[in-house]
Amino acid sequence: MIKRPDTSCDFPKSVCIYEVGARDGLQNETCLPSQSKINFINLLSQSGLSHIEAGAFVSAKRVPQMADSLNVMRAIKRQDNITYSALTPNIQGFEMALSARADEVAIFASASEGFSQHNINCSISESLKRFEPVMALAQLHGIPVRGYLSCVIDCPYDGPTPANQVLQITEQLIGMGCYEVSLGDTIGTGTPFKVANLLDTINSQIPSRKIAVHFHNTWGQALPNIYQALSMGIDTIDASVAGLGGCPYAPGASGNVATEDVVYLCHQLGIETGLNLDVLAAAGWMICQQLNISPRSNVSIAMKARQLQ
Amino acid sequence: MIKRPDTSCDFPKSVCIYEVGARDGLQNETCLPSQSKINFINLLSQSGLSHIEAGAFVSAKRVPQMADSLNVMRAIKRQDNITYSALTPNIQGFEMALSARADEVAIFASASEGFSQHNINCSISESLKRFEPVMALAQLHGIPVRGYLSCVIDCPYDGPTPANQVLQITEQLIGMGCYEVSLGDTIGTGTPFKVANLLDTINSQIPSRKIAVHFHNTWGQALPNIYQALSMGIDTIDASVAGLGGCPYAPGASGNVATEDVVYLCHQLGIETGLNLDVLAAAGWMICQQLNISPRSNVSIAMKARQLQ
Repeated sequence: MIKRPDTSCDFPKSVCIYEVGARDGLQNETCLPSQSKINFINLLSQSGLSHIEAGAFVSAKRVPQMADSLNVMRAIKRQDNITYSALTPNIQGFEMALSARADEVAIFASASEGFSQHNINCSISESLKRFEPVMALAQLHGIPVRGYLSCVIDCPYDGPTPANQVLQITEQLIGMGCYEVSLGDTIGTGTPFKVANLLDTINSQIPSRKIAVHFHNTWGQALPNIYQALSMGIDTIDASVAGLGGCPYAPGASGNVATEDVVYLCHQLGIETGLNLDVLAAAGWMICQQLNISPRSNVSIAMKARQLQ
Repeated sequence: MIKRPDTSCDFPKSVCIYEVGARDGLQNETCLPSQSKINFINLLSQSGLSHIEAGAFVSAKRVPQMADSLNVMRAIKRQDNITYSALTPNIQGFEMALSARADEVAIFASASEGFSQHNINCSISESLKRFEPVMALAQLHGIPVRGYLSCVIDCPYDGPTPANQVLQITEQLIGMGCYEVSLGDTIGTGTPFKVANLLDTINSQIPSRKIAVHFHNTWGQALPNIYQALSMGIDTIDASVAGLGGCPYAPGASGNVATEDVVYLCHQLGIETGLNLDVLAAAGWMICQQLNISPRSNVSIAMKARQLQ
C-alpha cells in the first residue's frame, strides 16, 4: 500500500535557514583566497540569516579548503544577531574555534556503521566517545553544540538506514549535550515517503525544535523532501547558497540544496524566513564567480534571467 | 493561516508519463537535423513510454525547429502500444498530422487573457472558436484530441490566474471534445499550496483522469508541485527528457521538468511508471550531445557520475 505523507502537524509559520555554504559548501569546492570567503560571509551577513556556518577546524591536509578558517573567522564583520559556527572534530579544533570566536560549534557522526568506518575510520560508538572531551569543554565555555548526523536515509555501503537506528544515535547526540541534531541525507537518495517514515519515528520521541534537516539535491529530490518535512513541523533547514558543495560521492552532480530555492519555496508557502532573497542570490553569484562555476540554483538563475530581460 | 496539502485522495498506484521532449522540448532548443530527432524518438520508444509528443504542424517561419515534423513522424519506427501525437493549431496542421499518421493531436489555449493576446494575438474565447473546425475534423477521423492550457497558476502579464477561470476554460476544452486537458504552469512560479488550491477547484468538477499536469522547473519547484498533484490523485504528468526546452520566457533558465527526475520520484514513492530509467537517460544524453548542452536533470547527471565511479 502506498503511504500518505503525515500532515498531522501544521506547517511552521516561520523557519530558520541554517546557511552552510561557507563551510559544508566551500569545503567541497576548489580552494579560494581567504578574502573571497570573508567577503562572502560578510555579504551573507546582510541577508537576514541568523545562523552561518563559517569554518572548520579540521586537518588542513585532508581539507585544505578550510585551512584558513581561523583567519577568516577573525576577519569577518560580525553582526550581533548572527550565530557564526565552526566544525570541531576534537579538542584542538575546539580550542581553535574558541580562538576564532565561534558562537557555536558542531560535531558529526554517521547513522550507518559502514559510512562511519569508511569516512572516519571508527565505529559510530567510538566516534561519539571521541567527542566527549569536546562536549565537556563546550559546556565549560557555554558554547552551544550542534550535531550533524549523516546517511540518515541511505548509506553507500550499508544500504537503507533503519529509522530506529537514526533515532537512537540522535538521542545519544542530544544526551551528550547537542541542542539540535541536523539529519543529513548524505547521498541524496531520499524521497518524501522515506522522509515521512524517518520523521514519524524521530518525532515520536524528540521535539521537532531539536531537529533540523539537511537534504542533498543529487537526485533532484531535496525540495519535495523539504516540503514533506515542513508539513511535519520541522522548522530548521540546512541549505547552501548557490548549492555550493557539489556531491563528494558523485563528482559533477549536485549536492547541498540551494538556499535560494528553499527560501523561494518557503516564501511562496507563506512561511517566513526573515531572509532577503536578492542579497542571498547576490552572495551566490559573487562566490560562484570566484569559483568559476554557475550557481546550482534554479531560482538564482531565473532571477538573473529576469533581470536581463 | 497556512494551508495543508489536500491528501484526501490516495496517491495513484501508477502514472502515465506524457513525454513532450521531442516537441515542446526541441521546439525551444536549437534546430537539429531530422535524423537526430528520428533517432531520439526511436530510442524514447524503447523506454516503455505510452505517449510521445513527436511533432508540431505550425508555422515553419515562427517555429523552424518543427518544420520537418512530417518527415520525422513518417520516418520514426512505430511501436504498436505507443501514441505518437502532434500539435495542430488549425485545419492545415491537422491535415498534415493525418498525413504524418499522428495517433493523437493537441490544441492549446491560455488560461489568462493577457497571455492569449500576447502569444496568439486573440482572446481566449476567440482562440477556442478557431479550434472548432479542428475538433470537428478530429471527430470525423476518430483522432483523440488533447488540450493544453497555459498559465494556470500565474501569467506574466495578468499576475495570478484565478482557479475558477482555469476550471471554466478546462470545462470548455472538455466540452469541445478534448479527452484530457494538460494544465501548464508556463512560467514555473507555482508552489504546492497554489497547486493544491487549483486542483481542489478542478477536482471538484472534473474527474482527475481527464487532467494532466505540466510543470516547469524554472524556479526549481516542479517536483514539490508534482508530489502535491500526486497526493491529490493526478495520474498523468507531462515531462521532457533531460529537461529539454529551457524557458522561452527566461533565457538560460530551466523549463520543462526532466522526465528522469519525475520517474525517479515516482519509482521511489512506489508508483509505477512502466519506464526504464536507463533508456530514458540514454536518450537524454544522446540528444543533448547533438544540442551541445548538458541534461537539465539531476537524476541523469547523478546516474552518469555513478557510472563513471
